[in-house]
Formats: sequence, structure tokens, C-alpha cells
Amino acid sequence: MSPATPATPHKSWVPSANRADSHFPIQNLPFGVFTTAASADPRVGVAIGDEILDLSVLDTRGLLKVPAGLFAQRTLNPFMAAGRDVWRSVRSQLTQLLSDDNATLRDDVALRQTALVPQSQATMHLPVDIPGYTDFYSSREHATNVGALFRDPKNALMPNWLEIPIGYNGRASSVIVSGTPVRRPNGQIKKPDQERPVFSPCLRLDIELETGFFVGVPSGLGDPIACQDAEAHIFGMVLLNDWSARDLQAWEYVPLGPFNAKGFATTISPWVVTMDALEPFRCAQPPQDPVPLSYLQHEGHHAFDLHLEAAIRPANQSTATTLSRTNFKFMYWTMAQQLAHHTVSGTNTRVGDLMGSGTISGATPDSLGSLLEMTAGGKTPITLNGGETRTFIEDGDELILTGWCQGDGYRVGFGTCTGTILPAHPIKK
Amino acid sequence: MSPATPATPHKSWVPSANRADSHFPIQNLPFGVFTTAASADPRVGVAIGDEILDLSVLDTRGLLKVPAGLFAQRTLNPFMAAGRDVWRSVRSQLTQLLSDDNATLRDDVALRQTALVPQSQATMHLPVDIPGYTDFYSSREHATNVGALFRDPKNALMPNWLEIPIGYNGRASSVIVSGTPVRRPNGQIKKPDQERPVFSPCLRLDIELETGFFVGVPSGLGDPIACQDAEAHIFGMVLLNDWSARDLQAWEYVPLGPFNAKGFATTISPWVVTMDALEPFRCAQPPQDPVPLSYLQHEGHHAFDLHLEAAIRPANQSTATTLSRTNFKFMYWTMAQQLAHHTVSGTNTRVGDLMGSGTISGATPDSLGSLLEMTAGGKTPITLNGGETRTFIEDGDELILTGWCQGDGYRVGFGTCTGTILPAHPIKK
Repeated sequence: MSPATPATPHKSWVPSANRADSHFPIQNLPFGVFTTAASADPRVGVAIGDEILDLSVLDTRGLLKVPAGLFAQRTLNPFMAAGRDVWRSVRSQLTQLLSDDNATLRDDVALRQTALVPQSQATMHLPVDIPGYTDFYSSREHATNVGALFRDPKNALMPNWLEIPIGYNGRASSVIVSGTPVRRPNGQIKKPDQERPVFSPCLRLDIELETGFFVGVPSGLGDPIACQDAEAHIFGMVLLNDWSARDLQAWEYVPLGPFNAKGFATTISPWVVTMDALEPFRCAQPPQDPVPLSYLQHEGHHAFDLHLEAAIRPANQSTATTLSRTNFKFMYWTMAQQLAHHTVSGTNTRVGDLMGSGTISGATPDSLGSLLEMTAGGKTPITLNGGETRTFIEDGDELILTGWCQGDGYRVGFGTCTGTILPAHPIKK
Repeated sequence: MSPATPATPHKSWVPSANRADSHFPIQNLPFGVFTTAASADPRVGVAIGDEILDLSVLDTRGLLKVPAGLFAQRTLNPFMAAGRDVWRSVRSQLTQLLSDDNATLRDDVALRQTALVPQSQATMHLPVDIPGYTDFYSSREHATNVGALFRDPKNALMPNWLEIPIGYNGRASSVIVSGTPVRRPNGQIKKPDQERPVFSPCLRLDIELETGFFVGVPSGLGDPIACQDAEAHIFGMVLLNDWSARDLQAWEYVPLGPFNAKGFATTISPWVVTMDALEPFRCAQPPQDPVPLSYLQHEGHHAFDLHLEAAIRPANQSTATTLSRTNFKFMYWTMAQQLAHHTVSGTNTRVGDLMGSGTISGATPDSLGSLLEMTAGGKTPITLNGGETRTFIEDGDELILTGWCQGDGYRVGFGTCTGTILPAHPIKK
């Protein structure tokens, strides 16, 4: 356990934070941006149990020792740009203020009423202004499954895959926060039996169950980040759904990669879980064979034991069906290796850059991160609770990602990352 | 000729603007951001002959009827966000102020000394804060040439190429302004006779001669831009050099497209030439067969007769050798089609988004837009003035792009887009 993660206190004076199944105990303290009906000014908060602690209020009252101007903001970028020492100092101060033996907030009813907002009464916003979005492809199981479906089962894994943390630049403008509806895209679909493509609503709309991390400490043009130092550049992690139009993708992606098939929306969870909160769940990544080139080598453990789930809830149903249970620790390439590779040719990074993990699939049929894989390319429908079946996503379906690290009697959770599908725009003939 | 482009006056009281070979006559008036030794505050200027007209000075003096706060800025984004009517109003007002029959500035020596800055005394900056950078691949000749070299000469053009304006998301963070040195990237190179890749400086460093356009009028998530309306979203154009590490590219690009091979640097020219300045040079695009799907159809002429050149100057030489003479009008897919395709699946655009044309190659050997094509994949060296040869770029080489539209006795020019190659960082063993 790192020095930044205090072993005690384990309890908060916020009762809901002490439930064993809460995603937001005092051990977590993820950062987000919210508004309320009472105040439309976006500001930075920390999730604690079922509440949000409004850091702009604490700052105004002089209860936080921090540089000025970090929390009455519409994004986390100013706080992220303040650097790792400030992140850790704020985390430490919040741990103190929220611990059950600290009276400052606990016993000040008036201040608590101003500084604590029920999550049910808050609107969460995209937490970060994202200057660049990169998506990797770092699950060996996913790359193998997709390679077999899109290309050749005998040579599913490309020759470069075991040498390079393969990634591509995604579209930053369409990264949206959990809860934002997603309109089914229109685009070109080419059927094998037709000479020309048709312009059509996507017929094979899919999820990709991913995580993402935010760069908090940037790097300059021409200044690669060393693999061993890379994690210190990371502010925190979110859940990420890389919505994918498989039929558009299959036709468009050669030779320059996915474009419209992915660019219409990418949903992230609203709470950014810090690396300090994740530190107790560090674990060994899978063995890498061949041993990576030296610029991709790092000592120690760089995976995190983060349980992940994807679920679907049709419009006419009240309960969701779990589609997949997987784990971030299965990823072949680590976040540190992704960042080292991204910058090794000189690419710079900026505060708020988002890096997606790539779809996180495990080795078993119940641990796959996309419907494409779960249904064998749409050939094997899934039966949901209540009897409906799905190959791909239908209009009105809500897709729900969740994830948490399981501690001893507590969870460091990510909440949920959701999106409901709206029908495509009608096509003019 | 559009109403927005006045046929008269043709002359400015700035003498250097009236030279037939000036890139910046009164007909052009491109926008840029500059600083001087006397003032380190970045501000918006317009190139006129060998001078820059400082719009922040004009604005302070009350000589421009414009919304407040557009020109004392470090980027053009506030001006771009003000909308097309403001762009056109400012262009019209500047045309008046700079015309040889207008005394306001011409006869006010003190004001002229403040408002006019010699370009030789100014430092140009990246003119736009670029939230997204997309690079297309819209030259049929280039796509055919590269397809033959990277893949299969018999099926050089991919099946999707004649249906889709193929593009990919590039890395916005590393877009730099002309004159910024470019460090040779290190990366993975896989030689055919070796089992594993090596980590090495790029040995096949190349240019791509392109133009780019900036989105000035944004579009919302889920709101496609109609092809017929797309040009109205474009603020203006620049020259663009999409530096490319061919050996890194060949190994990394399957299946998700180019990444580190392109992400280390993209250079643009500092002056953004407006669509109104380009309007007189509108011409027919090449015929498209098959007729594109309806969302890619537009009436009228959507190409521009823009002459382009690439040149190289080795470190030890005072003069450059022209490598290529080509023309933007050769492009198969138009800017309007690129923008319509980019947004048709619902992707939003933002003020300042940069869209690269893709390498602009013509049909003849002297009109190719990359060294890869000029040297047949490095097999046929080029002999430069002075006798040196090149297959790809060597350390110390300066690469120079230029371009202009030829009017009757004047040029609407883009100036130059240059970069000199620094040696790669030494590789630690």
C-alpha cells in the first residue's frame, strides 16, 4: 500500500459512504464536475457515499489549503494542471475532513447543508476538457477475437500486436458524459452481395467495454515519457464505452483505421478515480512474450484488479441483464506502456488527454467486452432476462457499464457509465 | 466572382502588396497571429505585401466596426467564432482601409508606424487553437501510388476509396507552425529479413504536400452538415506538411491506421487564406465515377485552382531544389464532401478544427506530393541542384512548401510552410 493511501481511518461521518457496496467510500474520493437546480455554475466535487462534497464551497470557506481558483471551474483541468503534489495534498485533506473522527464538517450543520449535495439532485458534466483522445487495443483476447471475425481466424493477431501497444487517434469532440443519449449513426454499409454500398442507419451497433485514463502531467513535443515514469503522468481513470458501428467499420477501416464507425460518440463515467485510490489494487500484468523492446519495459506491477461489468436494459424493461463480467487486470499492455509508446516518437501530451484501454475481454465466453464477440459476429443471439434476444443494440436500449475494485469491506468504485440509443435520423431519399 | 470579393480596388497604398509576385496583395488579406520584439503579446494581423497590419491596433483606435475582443488574442478562434458575417465585414473594411485611394491609414504616418509591422521583424505563431485534427486521403493519384507501394499494385485503390472520402483522426497536439524545427522520430522498424522489429531513428522520413482547412462555423453532435452547405462552415485554408515516418508507418498501421508515424509533427503555414479570397479561383473538380451516394452530392464547382510546390534545401546549400509542382484542383474529393462525410454519422465539429486534404499528387512524375512516390519507395534517388541525392529526408534538410492562386497580375498566396529536420534523440541501449 502506498504512503498516499492511508490505511486509517476507514470510516466517514457520511453514513452512506460506509455501506460495503458503496462505490464511493472514504477510500475512493473521485473527482467530478456538477451543477444543481440551486446553482447552475459548474464546480468540482468529490463523491462520498450518496453525496457530493462541493470543493468550491470548502475552498471559499478557507477549509482547503490549495492554490486559488481550482474548484469553481467547469472542468478538472485547472486542478489537474496544478500537479501531483496538489492532487495528493487535496486527497489527504479531504480524507481528514470526511473521516468520522473529524468534527469540522461533521458538526457544522449549516456548512454541511451547503457543502454536501445529494448525488440524486446533481447533474454531472463531462469532467475534463479533452484536447486529445487516443484509443488503444490492448486486450490480447479482444484483438484475437476481432481479428478472427473481421479478417482471418488463422492469423487473427497481427504480427505487430505483440510488439506495439496498438492505438489510434479517436475523435475528442464527441466524448460525452454518462447519461447523454446516443443517436444511432447513419453511414455507408457494404453488403457482400451488392456492388455498391448503401447509406443506411447502422444495423450492427455495439459497445466496447473499456476504461480510460487522463493525462494530468503533460509532456513536451519531442520529449518521450519513459515507461518507468509513465504512471506519474496519470491523474486518474474512468469507465469508457467506445460505441462502435460494426457495419460502417468493416467497410471504412482499410487502410487508415476506424473513423465514422467510432466518431459519433464515446461515453465516459463522470467520476475520475485517482491513481492513489487505485494503488491498493495494483497487481501483476500478464507475462509478455516476447519481452518488449527496451522502451516498453518497466519494473514491478502495473495492472490493477478492477472488476468490470456490462449490462443492457431494453426500453420496455425495468431491469438490466448483465452481458459480461471481466477485469482490467487481463490487459496485455499496461497504461504505462501505452503512454510510453504514444510519446516515444516525440508526440506531446496535454493536460486532459484521454487514453482508452481498448475493449477489455477475458478468456472466457462470459467475459467478453463487445457484442461482436459475445454473439460471434451477430450469428449467436443473446437471450436477455424476460426473453428478448439481441445480437446488436436496438433503439431504446440502455447500455450500462460499471466497475469497482474490491477492498476488505469496501469498494473503490467507478459508478456507472450509461447511454440510451435514440433512433437514427431519417434518411432523405 | 462572388459579391464578397470586390473587383476593385486592385491596388494598395502598401507598395510591396502591388508586386505581381507578392503572395499578399490587397485581394488576399489572410489572417495570422504574431508577436514582435517590441511587444510579446500575441495579436491578430493580416498580411499585406511585406507587412503585417496589426488588427488589435486598428480595433483599439476604433477603426474597425467589430464585436469587442477579437484581435488582442493569441489565436484566431474568437474571430472565427464570431461567424461568417463578421469575417466578411472585417475583410470588406480592411479592403477599404488598405486601398490606394483611402487616406485614413495611408496619410497618418504615426498610426501607420504603429499598425504596420514588417513581416521580417515579426514572429508568427500557430494561428489557431486546434481542438481536432483530421487528415483525409483524397487524391486518387496519391492513394493509387501508395497502395501500389505499401500493398498490391494490381489492387492499389481500395474498394471503398471511390465511395468514401477516406480520412482518419490525426494528433492535434503536435500541429506546429511553419519554421518550427522537427525532430526525427524514433520508433519501431521491422525489416523483412528480421524476426523482430528494432527501435531505431526513422530511416525513411518523408513529407506529404497537403492543404488544410479550418472549421469556422461548428456543428453539433448528431447534426450532420449537408454537402451543399458545407463550404459555408469553412473559415479558410493553409498549407500543411504531414510529416511521415514511412518505416514506422509500414509496421504499425495495420489494422487501426497510422499513429506514431504521423503523430510527431504536422506543420502548417502561419497565414490562413479565407474562402472569400479563394473564391475567384473556384473551378470544376474531377468527374466522379461512380456518382457518389446522395449525402456526398453537391451542385456546382467545388475545387480551387491552387498551384502548389514542394522544395528541399540541404543544410550545406543556400538554394532549394523544387521537388514537385502540383495543384489542389486535382483532388478527387472536395472539402465540402470531406466535411459532409465527417459529420454524416453525427460527429460534431468545433471552431478551429483542422482538416487536412491528404497528399496532393498529380498524374505526372513531376507532380507527386511525397518522396515515397517520387523515389518509387526509395528505389530511385532524386538528384538535387548541386549534385546531392535524396531518397528520403536527411538531418539538416529544410523542406519548403509553397502555393498560390494566379490571378490577372496578382497572386493570392499562402507564403511558405517550412521545417528543418533535427537529428533523432540518441537511443539508450
